Amino acid sequence: MKFSLEKSYEILERTPAVLKTLLSNLDEGWVMNNEGPETFSPYDVIGHLIHGEKTDWTARTKIILESGLSKPFTPWDRFAQFEESKGKSLLQLLDEFETIRKENLNWLKSLNLSETDLDRKGIHPKLGEVTLRNLLSTWVVHDLTHIAQITRVMAKQYKEEMGPWPEFFRILNF
Amino acid sequence: MKFSLEKSYEILERTPAVLKTLLSNLDEGWVMNNEGPETFSPYDVIGHLIHGEKTDWTARTKIILESGLSKPFTPWDRFAQFEESKGKSLLQLLDEFETIRKENLNWLKSLNLSETDLDRKGIHPKLGEVTLRNLLSTWVVHDLTHIAQITRVMAKQYKEEMGPWPEFFRILNF
Repeated sequence: MKFSLEKSYEILERTPAVLKTLLSNLDEGWVMNNEGPETFSPYDVIGHLIHGEKTDWTARTKIILESGLSKPFTPWDRFAQFEESKGKSLLQLLDEFETIRKENLNWLKSLNLSETDLDRKGIHPKLGEVTLRNLLSTWVVHDLTHIAQITRVMAKQYKEEMGPWPEFFRILNF
Repeated sequence: MKFSLEKSYEILERTPAVLKTLLSNLDEGWVMNNEGPETFSPYDVIGHLIHGEKTDWTARTKIILESGLSKPFTPWDRFAQFEESKGKSLLQLLDEFETIRKENLNWLKSLNLSETDLDRKGIHPKLGEVTLRNLLSTWVVHDLTHIAQITRVMAKQYKEEMGPWPEFFRILNF
């Protein structure tokens, strides 16, 4: 599928509502458990998404548009949420994510990006040259794969209760 | 996490709303594409979930409660939706799933299942002996893993647009 801003907004705009519908008012077991050491719980993922809104997607868009190849992106801390989420409830985090995502999308739309803008390049500290189109596609994919991760983590919590059925669910061994 | 009917209802009740929030009014590219030959699109998955409501979860619950080990479950057609969904819009399918899921959960709740009931057994045609608790856990996991699948399939549609980023997303190669 070809990238378009419209198709990207369709996903980016709905992710906060999808996560609220999926995670609000659930038993703690669904929300706070993870997949093992150094993995994320659904609660952790929401903090991670908030940190991305604050420090990654729009910050890197600005660097590409303002500095291009002359200034590499700031490396991103994928574990920052373990500090930043402390003391916050899941509902607080879901609200915070909804608010900051809306602000970021309003800002992005206000740029009126052209196809030429989408071809502009920046330097990723590990991956090298990337275009703004690559960055915005990855923002969308990052949302979708974290919803996939959250539901996989939740599913695994019942693995021991399924008797012999896990062998039909390849995803439980991912 | 230990199985409980309450924790299971929490998921089973919200899945139709999660899918509506995730999939309503999206570009066809997000909804109708799949992961390659003999894989499901998000549209296909909704038909598959409806078929499960009609022929699997409650039907097998009935067999366990009424016949126990004396009558194996009817094998399930995992590809029935390719016929049954024909001519229906995604929104029709999402509504149909919501309705039949609600009916099935009302029926399940009306059984007032006890812990002893949950230990009752049936015969799966391939897996052998399973308990009602195993079956109901698997119903929940089936919902969650299909949401994971849908979002993974959607994410893959942008893989070509991400430049070098897919190497950071293990899930895109699942």
